[in-house]
Amino acid sequence: MAKVKVPSKSQSDLARHWELSPIGRRILREGRQFSTVRRIVVAARKVFAQKGLTGARMDEIARVAGVNKALPYYYFRNKEELHRFVLETMIAQISGQMESPAVLDMDPRDRVRALVNITFDFVMRNPAYPRLIQREMMAARRNLHWMVVAHHRPLHQRAVKTIREGIANGQFRDVDPDQMVFTIFGMIMFYFATGQLASQIWNRDIWDPKNVEQRRRSVLDFLEHGLMSKPASTT
Amino acid sequence: MAKVKVPSKSQSDLARHWELSPIGRRILREGRQFSTVRRIVVAARKVFAQKGLTGARMDEIARVAGVNKALPYYYFRNKEELHRFVLETMIAQISGQMESPAVLDMDPRDRVRALVNITFDFVMRNPAYPRLIQREMMAARRNLHWMVVAHHRPLHQRAVKTIREGIANGQFRDVDPDQMVFTIFGMIMFYFATGQLASQIWNRDIWDPKNVEQRRRSVLDFLEHGLMSKPASTT
Repeated sequence: MAKVKVPSKSQSDLARHWELSPIGRRILREGRQFSTVRRIVVAARKVFAQKGLTGARMDEIARVAGVNKALPYYYFRNKEELHRFVLETMIAQISGQMESPAVLDMDPRDRVRALVNITFDFVMRNPAYPRLIQREMMAARRNLHWMVVAHHRPLHQRAVKTIREGIANGQFRDVDPDQMVFTIFGMIMFYFATGQLASQIWNRDIWDPKNVEQRRRSVLDFLEHGLMSKPASTT
Repeated sequence: MAKVKVPSKSQSDLARHWELSPIGRRILREGRQFSTVRRIVVAARKVFAQKGLTGARMDEIARVAGVNKALPYYYFRNKEELHRFVLETMIAQISGQMESPAVLDMDPRDRVRALVNITFDFVMRNPAYPRLIQREMMAARRNLHWMVVAHHRPLHQRAVKTIREGIANGQFRDVDPDQMVFTIFGMIMFYFATGQLASQIWNRDIWDPKNVEQRRRSVLDFLEHGLMSKPASTT
């Protein structure tokens, strides 16, 4: 696997997300070398997405990060801790966007569209995210129950609440909110998680921004007709 | 892992699907012990679904099948061949149903509903199928290109053709057929492939037949409004 290029981004922005994770707070408290930790974390995302928690090796993560192979153990107790930190920081980022005051102020119809757009934008900037999450959803390890409690269940419940509000105010048809939330995220995550094979089936690169835009439009259009009580053009 | 119970089923029915696979034809030609091969195949489905091609071991498959650990190698050259055979026979079964004259004779609207119903019915009888397929879609190994050519691409193209016909005859809205096919199978496969974690998020067993029925109704309802040009009740 090729060495990673770490995108330049302000340290304060990343530190803000790290603050949300107990592991991140410890790393910041201990005054570790920020840029080195970041390099390891970016490499770890890539390796975990490709090989999963079981298949990934700390040696390879160090190699991809371009650091000495002992170094990841200096920052993280073990592979499981690094894996959890990778997931926690991504989750903190996307949850933060979904819970921003601007989004919470929207009416249910705009909020559902915003959830779709936030997910697409986030995935384009973090292409490892769908496979990381999908892998954990398929593995469903007992020790990943923290992820259900900290992430999936709140995310699901927030979205269910939005659907309920939309049914109540007449913007949405009378659908099953739990099923609808699963459908919305399924339409997005399935596309990206199965992307490599999908590219072969379609003979097109599903990660090409043009094709991602087409997928986004298609998901929003399907929701417009499958969820909204009237097509937007008539309101 | 517990030993498998092999459901009683006529040998001729299974042999019919085996005939469709080159590996199966060889096994039948060589006059192998049918019931033993079947026992190994049923165990292999279970183990591959849980651990993937890389994580599964022939020893464990033999143990789950309740046969001597040398026996799988008597029937299959190696793990890869057994894995391919497991997928090929499942694919032959579901494709056979989707291409039956009864389905091909339907109009596009009924044919789309039939594709959904066939997939749900098949998954309920073969609960390992979604995870087996999803795993391979995520791994996208070069040596699994046979599966794209033999299965995914024809399945995709058949479904795309159905959507095109429905748009042409006015039963469907003017949607992107490629995107729509991905959405339909995504809504079904994502539900089952992520089932274990989904059960934790929802606090319900997503494999419970009652809940599967609810999912099926929800998918069909979403298609009724998101794909069909008019709700069925008004036609």
